[in-house]
Amino acid sequence: MSFSGPEILLIIEAAGTFAFAVSGAMAAIRSRFDLFGIFVLAFVTAIGGGTIRDLLIGNLPVSWLTNSLAIFSVLAGFLFTLIVYRRINKLEGWLFTFDAAGLGLFTVMGTQIAMEGGMSPGIAVALGTITGCFGGVIRDVLAGEPPLIFQKEIYAIAAVAGGTIFITIVDLLGTLFIAQITGILVIVAIRYVAVKRELGLPRLQLPEKN
Amino acid sequence: MSFSGPEILLIIEAAGTFAFAVSGAMAAIRSRFDLFGIFVLAFVTAIGGGTIRDLLIGNLPVSWLTNSLAIFSVLAGFLFTLIVYRRINKLEGWLFTFDAAGLGLFTVMGTQIAMEGGMSPGIAVALGTITGCFGGVIRDVLAGEPPLIFQKEIYAIAAVAGGTIFITIVDLLGTLFIAQITGILVIVAIRYVAVKRELGLPRLQLPEKN
Amino acid sequence: MSFSGPEILLIIEAAGTFAFAVSGAMAAIRSRFDLFGIFVLAFVTAIGGGTIRDLLIGNLPVSWLTNSLAIFSVLAGFLFTLIVYRRINKLEGWLFTFDAAGLGLFTVMGTQIAMEGGMSPGIAVALGTITGCFGGVIRDVLAGEPPLIFQKEIYAIAAVAGGTIFITIVDLLGTLFIAQITGILVIVAIRYVAVKRELGLPRLQLPEKN
Repeated sequence: MSFSGPEILLIIEAAGTFAFAVSGAMAAIRSRFDLFGIFVLAFVTAIGGGTIRDLLIGNLPVSWLTNSLAIFSVLAGFLFTLIVYRRINKLEGWLFTFDAAGLGLFTVMGTQIAMEGGMSPGIAVALGTITGCFGGVIRDVLAGEPPLIFQKEIYAIAAVAGGTIFITIVDLLGTLFIAQITGILVIVAIRYVAVKRELGLPRLQLPEKN
Repeated sequence: MSFSGPEILLIIEAAGTFAFAVSGAMAAIRSRFDLFGIFVLAFVTAIGGGTIRDLLIGNLPVSWLTNSLAIFSVLAGFLFTLIVYRRINKLEGWLFTFDAAGLGLFTVMGTQIAMEGGMSPGIAVALGTITGCFGGVIRDVLAGEPPLIFQKEIYAIAAVAGGTIFITIVDLLGTLFIAQITGILVIVAIRYVAVKRELGLPRLQLPEKN
Repeated sequence: MSFSGPEILLIIEAAGTFAFAVSGAMAAIRSRFDLFGIFVLAFVTAIGGGTIRDLLIGNLPVSWLTNSLAIFSVLAGFLFTLIVYRRINKLEGWLFTFDAAGLGLFTVMGTQIAMEGGMSPGIAVALGTITGCFGGVIRDVLAGEPPLIFQKEIYAIAAVAGGTIFITIVDLLGTLFIAQITGILVIVAIRYVAVKRELGLPRLQLPEKN
């Protein structure tokens, strides 16, 4: 995802792409996919959200086609998973941190790209959320599972909150870097609290007769 | 979906988007999705067909990104569902009417947009049908169910018929508004008859040994 | 898929599109879809891969919208399936040959279109593989089955090999036609050997406790 900025953001992008790729590869292993399926799921999980955003706003060719950092981060996540998949539980803490950082960065990135494309703030936050979340939706559809983010914990709402704060700070202070870092940190913080306390959004119960 | 025209069409568009959003929200509640999942399913059901059409013909950014009527209609359908979902059966008649009107309008709209984009009549009808029907396909895939329109009643065929009649009238008479209204009415009428008489398309039975 | 070239390639394209459409139609019949569902699945299986490629690189409107050869080949495959679906097993050999030829041609075509669009060789091979393989992925998702190419035999790897050889020959010899034919033949040959010997990619086994 062609995001130019300070080096710290590039590092977060690589780490986030890596974590997303690992989550895709693990879902594929659980679904008994072969090596190619594992690679494809790693790939679409990591680049799916940005791809949908690019398609919707007409940012074509989509950005991963010309972004070698993304490709190499996916490859690294794929190979890493092949090596450690039997002991992946021990790495859960690290992967969660990477994933939260990736969600934060991708959301802020997606929101910023949409703003630069002239979208209204509400639409920009929606596109940022899509950037952060929809790779996971594609992963779950391909793996034959109901999309996790529609059912578990606070995930997308963290993205919405972070994107909104990012836009607000840019608007009020006009400083991009502070807005980026704050947006990312808010998303990471909400994710930590949600998982720690097992917070989820309410569901609705249909009457029995239905 | 950026459709300029007489006010009656705007009202149909709002009602149709609303009904599509309700059908998405109800599918999400049945699949035990949380509040965010309910909102997303309402959204993609209502705007999915037009989004696929816009992507295929290169009408980017896709139209809902700049169409606040669509966004507000989705929001209304989402909130409405949260309030009435336990008694939704009593509203079935209204929702069916809205849904049929929405299918009619979206199909005619999609066909017209494709014609204006220089597509041949057959392709334009196909794109109109996609506009009317594929939001429901995305809804069913995300909810983990086989797509309803591939299995039940006459749905897509109604869209094909309405789109064809729309194009024929525009071609013969050159009057857009009469063509639009006739196309929509034909689709609504076919839907009414199909549901009333439980008409469906034939299926094929594979031999047992297979 | 707007591929100009010697007539032999047009014949392969028609045969491949036909075979892909038949595989989509058969999957729909197995899933108990109605006539419309059978047609849609035939269609998206045959044109899905090229559509995704066109979307990703911004080649819009997507090519099937203006390619009547593709439309007629899909229609032929759809009607053919309706007639012979009870005896389809007897035709397996032919259909496999058509399918392998289609995979070969679509992959080489997709790779070439991506190269002409200025993509790097690695990305071009990836886009060629997507062109050849992702119609089948969409087919399986819509039919509610786990994507076949993530689980069975060597399929995508054949595409990767053929695309790579195609690019190598173009680069070394500069002769397009020889590169096209060689790429296609390599893919067909790998598919034959893989199916004959039931070759598959390795899968990974998670520890029991997981």
